Amino acid sequence: MRPSGRKPNELRSIVLEPGASKYAEGSCLARFGDTHVLCTASVETSVPGWMKNSGKGWITAEYGMLPRSTGTRTAREASRGKQSGRTQEIQRLIGRSLRAVTDMAGFGELQIRIDCDVLQADGGTRTAAITGSYVALQQAFDHLIGLSVIAKSPVTTQVAAVSCGIFSGSALLDLDYQEDSAAEADANFVLTTDERLVEVQATAEEHPFSQAQFDEMLGLAREGVAELFALQRAALEGSQ
Amino acid sequence: MRPSGRKPNELRSIVLEPGASKYAEGSCLARFGDTHVLCTASVETSVPGWMKNSGKGWITAEYGMLPRSTGTRTAREASRGKQSGRTQEIQRLIGRSLRAVTDMAGFGELQIRIDCDVLQADGGTRTAAITGSYVALQQAFDHLIGLSVIAKSPVTTQVAAVSCGIFSGSALLDLDYQEDSAAEADANFVLTTDERLVEVQATAEEHPFSQAQFDEMLGLAREGVAELFALQRAALEGSQ
Amino acid sequence: MRPSGRKPNELRSIVLEPGASKYAEGSCLARFGDTHVLCTASVETSVPGWMKNSGKGWITAEYGMLPRSTGTRTAREASRGKQSGRTQEIQRLIGRSLRAVTDMAGFGELQIRIDCDVLQADGGTRTAAITGSYVALQQAFDHLIGLSVIAKSPVTTQVAAVSCGIFSGSALLDLDYQEDSAAEADANFVLTTDERLVEVQATAEEHPFSQAQFDEMLGLAREGVAELFALQRAALEGSQ
Amino acid sequence: MRPSGRKPNELRSIVLEPGASKYAEGSCLARFGDTHVLCTASVETSVPGWMKNSGKGWITAEYGMLPRSTGTRTAREASRGKQSGRTQEIQRLIGRSLRAVTDMAGFGELQIRIDCDVLQADGGTRTAAITGSYVALQQAFDHLIGLSVIAKSPVTTQVAAVSCGIFSGSALLDLDYQEDSAAEADANFVLTTDERLVEVQATAEEHPFSQAQFDEMLGLAREGVAELFALQRAALEGSQ
Amino acid sequence: MRPSGRKPNELRSIVLEPGASKYAEGSCLARFGDTHVLCTASVETSVPGWMKNSGKGWITAEYGMLPRSTGTRTAREASRGKQSGRTQEIQRLIGRSLRAVTDMAGFGELQIRIDCDVLQADGGTRTAAITGSYVALQQAFDHLIGLSVIAKSPVTTQVAAVSCGIFSGSALLDLDYQEDSAAEADANFVLTTDERLVEVQATAEEHPFSQAQFDEMLGLAREGVAELFALQRAALEGSQ
Amino acid sequence: MRPSGRKPNELRSIVLEPGASKYAEGSCLARFGDTHVLCTASVETSVPGWMKNSGKGWITAEYGMLPRSTGTRTAREASRGKQSGRTQEIQRLIGRSLRAVTDMAGFGELQIRIDCDVLQADGGTRTAAITGSYVALQQAFDHLIGLSVIAKSPVTTQVAAVSCGIFSGSALLDLDYQEDSAAEADANFVLTTDERLVEVQATAEEHPFSQAQFDEMLGLAREGVAELFALQRAALEGSQ
Repeated sequence: MRPSGRKPNELRSIVLEPGASKYAEGSCLARFGDTHVLCTASVETSVPGWMKNSGKGWITAEYGMLPRSTGTRTAREASRGKQSGRTQEIQRLIGRSLRAVTDMAGFGELQIRIDCDVLQADGGTRTAAITGSYVALQQAFDHLIGLSVIAKSPVTTQVAAVSCGIFSGSALLDLDYQEDSAAEADANFVLTTDERLVEVQATAEEHPFSQAQFDEMLGLAREGVAELFALQRAALEGSQ
Repeated sequence: MRPSGRKPNELRSIVLEPGASKYAEGSCLARFGDTHVLCTASVETSVPGWMKNSGKGWITAEYGMLPRSTGTRTAREASRGKQSGRTQEIQRLIGRSLRAVTDMAGFGELQIRIDCDVLQADGGTRTAAITGSYVALQQAFDHLIGLSVIAKSPVTTQVAAVSCGIFSGSALLDLDYQEDSAAEADANFVLTTDERLVEVQATAEEHPFSQAQFDEMLGLAREGVAELFALQRAALEGSQ
Repeated sequence: MRPSGRKPNELRSIVLEPGASKYAEGSCLARFGDTHVLCTASVETSVPGWMKNSGKGWITAEYGMLPRSTGTRTAREASRGKQSGRTQEIQRLIGRSLRAVTDMAGFGELQIRIDCDVLQADGGTRTAAITGSYVALQQAFDHLIGLSVIAKSPVTTQVAAVSCGIFSGSALLDLDYQEDSAAEADANFVLTTDERLVEVQATAEEHPFSQAQFDEMLGLAREGVAELFALQRAALEGSQ
Repeated sequence: MRPSGRKPNELRSIVLEPGASKYAEGSCLARFGDTHVLCTASVETSVPGWMKNSGKGWITAEYGMLPRSTGTRTAREASRGKQSGRTQEIQRLIGRSLRAVTDMAGFGELQIRIDCDVLQADGGTRTAAITGSYVALQQAFDHLIGLSVIAKSPVTTQVAAVSCGIFSGSALLDLDYQEDSAAEADANFVLTTDERLVEVQATAEEHPFSQAQFDEMLGLAREGVAELFALQRAALEGSQ
Repeated sequence: MRPSGRKPNELRSIVLEPGASKYAEGSCLARFGDTHVLCTASVETSVPGWMKNSGKGWITAEYGMLPRSTGTRTAREASRGKQSGRTQEIQRLIGRSLRAVTDMAGFGELQIRIDCDVLQADGGTRTAAITGSYVALQQAFDHLIGLSVIAKSPVTTQVAAVSCGIFSGSALLDLDYQEDSAAEADANFVLTTDERLVEVQATAEEHPFSQAQFDEMLGLAREGVAELFALQRAALEGSQ
Repeated sequence: MRPSGRKPNELRSIVLEPGASKYAEGSCLARFGDTHVLCTASVETSVPGWMKNSGKGWITAEYGMLPRSTGTRTAREASRGKQSGRTQEIQRLIGRSLRAVTDMAGFGELQIRIDCDVLQADGGTRTAAITGSYVALQQAFDHLIGLSVIAKSPVTTQVAAVSCGIFSGSALLDLDYQEDSAAEADANFVLTTDERLVEVQATAEEHPFSQAQFDEMLGLAREGVAELFALQRAALEGSQ
């Protein structure tokens, strides 16, 4: 039995709420159980300096946690004056994941800025962020289509992410915080609808893991993202 | 007619949602129309160094805005590496307002950290933050009472805040962003149930204002906070 | 009796010394008793980026304290690497106060930078800074008139500031540090010669204050600034 | 044919030079072709605050690049005032990789600080850093054995890392910079002598990759680290 | 003829005004012509951590310039968030110069913090700072003698500083800003009453200089400091 | 006898290894005994903003130490977020020394960035850095000659640096760390082949020094740099 009482291949209750922001061109509040991440996509008319006159756009992401999104309060990064290594690692991952499924030459020299802010954290914030950001990004492109800036979305495939872990030697899907803390290893998989891999990050917490365990985690992840893809499609259809 | 179509002394639709955070000892999501501020109160067992062995507690506040809480995206303070002057001014105001209605000798050497995070901004974020933080603070003290750490709440009176402005020469209550941008002057009043003043901040945007105008704003503010006090009481009763 | 032995409506000995800096286009050393603030106005030919091509100028202010301007040494902000919230709050107040009495369209796209540096502090540094900066600003505009850059000063009225406080329940004018530390409430009033208000900042230190007390403070402030206006005029006449 | 002319499963010329630092308790200059990383292990007698009295030690890592270790000069992080997200990501990876093969309860409350400084970069700096740091870490533990601080090394298995990439659709081992720039995907594998996995980081550069491609990369990585393990053993034997 | 019209060996008009600060244990306003530096000495009861239990005291210095102490405004270091290399170089020089003439074992584990703030700059601010700081330091020790903390001053000899430069091939004493800008080389000499050297910093601006030129500068410096020593003694006698 | 066993006028074993970097336009690994400094010269096509359109080039330098270049680990400046005063002082010295022997109008509006990174430190890092940087700089100009960007090197004379100290009352050449720690005074001399002086920095560590001692140190320095000049010439000849 896993701590949460869920079956090994059972996701938490997932809700993707599109249009959660009044102002953003695209937005989605992603809830993976008690993990709540507000994802917004902002369209800006300038790309980074090194991309000027490339004819291509850019997608970048930033990530943050509200100080009391966690069980004990976490110091505010804005008042500490810098972002932690963990924050930077996560926001880089989100940006790469979205760029990998987007034709960067397909939306002019625009920049989409993704903001993922964790309102409440219970494990798996980065996977909720990626899954929700896909919805926000797609909404932002729909917005640009509505404005006739682009004719069709440059997104080439859906992308979603889910975590897995090794617990008492076998694999579990979509860890909550308590499970994550006790896991022997954990992995985040960013996958596409055509069964390809965008990012894999697998980490041994205390003990190295075997290839069989890795494969077992990847198998669970494939099951999990199939559900997430369906929820993404429903969210986008409902929001049009 | 004011831009929002409201009457001069009419508040926006106000909702104070207590217990909005799973983890915080006290919390309140304050909605003043489209302005949404999540207020949490975290109890910590250490006070600032200069207060050690004073037998008194401390209340401090931090304030932040999500990057896309605003009409056009605002740069994230954590990635810019410092908090703006405006942020610091607001968080100092919140902290002073709460300390002024609390007996600092009444809860031992504990520290209550208030976090006010603006999820969506449409004017009046600081007044929503103070009004909601009162609820979060009181909840945190109720939590300490429940733990028998203190016998009764050290809060001496309710405190709430509301903004007013001068628009086309006359006073309006509870400005939204559009109204605030066009106001000739604006003021924030932090008031108590016994009709005393905790903080007054009045600022001429373009032209100095008269004392009569100031008095008119203060009169509207008194009307407004009466409603806020009732909402605070209802929120706290409902959450017990 | 107040701690300083002054009458409730009695200012400290005030000296406004124009032209205190060899280099600045405008300057004034403002002495409010033992509080000494050097105010300079520097004319720059570039405005902030967001004002380019607006046809308007800008006035901004910075504030600092020498480390040993205080009774015990205060850490140098330049070596700590950031300005405190108090510093930012004060410099924003100074800038707003001066802009409110200046026609921003009346001096082209120039920027006036005000620097207020506290050489010695004994309470009321922000009010001395505003009062002295008015002189420095006016001198800087006189300098621009002398250069035929502008035909007349864009300043629309004099502006001066003074603090008041509630001490043993009644109001006092122009608090020194000792009085300020013991005050139950304190307020800073920024007022104009035509009896209008530019900024009001009133703060309960320990206990909220009544409206009658607020009105009493404002009354004293009106008396105080009348004297300050006369000193400003004398300083500017003497310096021409 | 791959750009470097090497066979798909061919490592660059690898040299692990132990004892490259006069002062460090352990050190290794790791050369993977033209990539040169100086790895040092410093023994410190204090652990991070949150580990005090845990009876366990800690291993942490920092990573840096000399400004002209790259083809065009990279700005010095010390003068920019902060470490990039990439730097933080890499140094966190190095630390985790070494902790995963060390019994943290086996060397008292000591801290080992690993420093990996890239003297010259030609791709694969993080894998060279991990591979060389293992040697430095083991030397530092040998040093502690020599001092009778510990009786035996708490390292449980060898750990080494190597990169792979997808180039023209098939997998290559140990990419140099030119190959890495052109790769469709790349992955870093941190592996142990008992064929377990410590870390996997696989990233699609432009297009998601298939599971078959991932497996092909992992297979090459297993071949590669077998050679690296032999070189580590030789380096440590030679340095005793 | 030198630009200032002074003779080659002629100091500017020098005034050392002791006790210029109401609060500091020691202070001196040093005026070298239009260069005005306020020097204060603050006694603190804690030394840096690495000196604890050494039985010795410490003297350290900080240096700053008011933004409009210069002909065109210099950005405020507190708002830029860091001190320039020049600032750090100067404050290290001041600290070393004073420590070199003080018996660090002669005043217990106290720390004297010197602050040198340039109110107005016209060349030679560091030499004015050292010369004035000597007076402030000696006053602070007199203050400690008055409190019976120490029996006698631990200062072993007077120290003063003056600049020299090579201008049109020959040496000049005590350069003002205009002369300094045009000098081919400049040097700062920190000297003692017993004709010893504490610090020498000589720098070729455009062209290397000869030893004869160096010796000529040192000769002028010896003449100059003789006058400064007399002014220091007069300042300290007058202030007792 | 000096601690190192060397004769008073005896340099450590010096090696200047040109071309130590694969990428840099000029480079030199300077070894002064156990002090190893990697010096690179990078050619950039943009000068600082204030030099634009001046027709002149610029040479600037940065300096850093690897964390474990020292006997006990030194905190990494990039992770501390700022460069120490010592670092800034040294890099300013290196830049000035090279500019003083270069005709800044002789290589167009190019910028040469010198990086001096200390791989291992045993005293005298700044003198090794200057001596090696001369070689790197000259190589970079040779590179530009090879590209026909300039016709001849704008370097006007060789420059090299060496330290001296007073130990037990008499002068020693080229101090190592142990000698430096025990020295009563130390000095760094930057000298040219035509026997002129570029920089002199002499500092009393505990006691002021006499002019005779200063002259003795300068005499030793002249002996020392003569050897360094020969090594520089040999390095440059060997590298062409």
